[in-house]
Amino acid sequence: MRWEPGAPQRLQRAALALFAARGFEQTTAAEIAQSVGLTERTFFRHFTDKREVLFHGQERLVQAFVEGVQAAPPDAAPIEIVAAALRSGADFFTDEQRPHSRTRQTIIDRNPALQERELHKLATLGATLADALRARGVGDLTADLAAQTGMTVFAISFARWIREGEERPLEAIETDVLAELRALTA
Amino acid sequence: MRWEPGAPQRLQRAALALFAARGFEQTTAAEIAQSVGLTERTFFRHFTDKREVLFHGQERLVQAFVEGVQAAPPDAAPIEIVAAALRSGADFFTDEQRPHSRTRQTIIDRNPALQERELHKLATLGATLADALRARGVGDLTADLAAQTGMTVFAISFARWIREGEERPLEAIETDVLAELRALTA
Repeated sequence: MRWEPGAPQRLQRAALALFAARGFEQTTAAEIAQSVGLTERTFFRHFTDKREVLFHGQERLVQAFVEGVQAAPPDAAPIEIVAAALRSGADFFTDEQRPHSRTRQTIIDRNPALQERELHKLATLGATLADALRARGVGDLTADLAAQTGMTVFAISFARWIREGEERPLEAIETDVLAELRALTA
Repeated sequence: MRWEPGAPQRLQRAALALFAARGFEQTTAAEIAQSVGLTERTFFRHFTDKREVLFHGQERLVQAFVEGVQAAPPDAAPIEIVAAALRSGADFFTDEQRPHSRTRQTIIDRNPALQERELHKLATLGATLADALRARGVGDLTADLAAQTGMTVFAISFARWIREGEERPLEAIETDVLAELRALTA
């Protein structure tokens, strides 16, 4: 028997295709579910609303960031801990994933409500990263600054990673952006 | 005759009071309007929805940031231009304004939909700041990084400025946070 992706994954892929083809507003949860042989009820068992389907799996990214922080050497400086978190998170963004990420971003960029949800998710990721730094004994202000700066590097690198024609891995882009940040604040 | 604040200002003050007393969800646009002798129709002439009333006047803050960028010396480094933008924006956050800003933030922090709107406004401010830097000839990546870093400094400083017991002006806090950022990335 072949491995079959679970309902959330199938719903997410179907949602991406329908949102891209018809638009987010014009697509209902019932239509997404029906397109992969599931019911609207099943959709809402997995997602609280239609927006959430675009953010499926993001808890694993948060977890990867936190694990990166925890696994950094004991004597690592805060900015190095953040760099370790970014490297750990970058594993999710494979070349195979890149076209899906592009489609997803196009959908989000067209819809203010989705942009708001995305920003909220990123803010939650930043707050979790700051908490993980504090748990390592990093001071309050430094933890906030390092985490937010890490999120800036992540967001700017990600936006470049999904540009048409871009072929560098996310981790390589993040390394360049971090170097640019050091030059900026030097 | 005394100067009377305009309808948007009166609606905003009334909204802050009602949201704080009863909660955002439990307060209607009609109730806000009625509490200052105006109609729901007038409310929606000034604000597209109930959330927007909490963001009244923010275009002036955006404008102050942009003017700060434009007024910075020709030879200023990108991070110094951003510091100039922050100083220009800090003029809005007077000691008199601080209690209102505290109340407003308490309301926003209790409501995810308001948090999403706030993050979207801050992202727009960051994008405008980046555009103003590019208009001065700052390179694309540096402009994005400098603007986002500036937004981080602003957001972290603002969160401290409205803490109970905090008495330093916003500009002084921003100066400290910028120094901490330089130490972090050194």
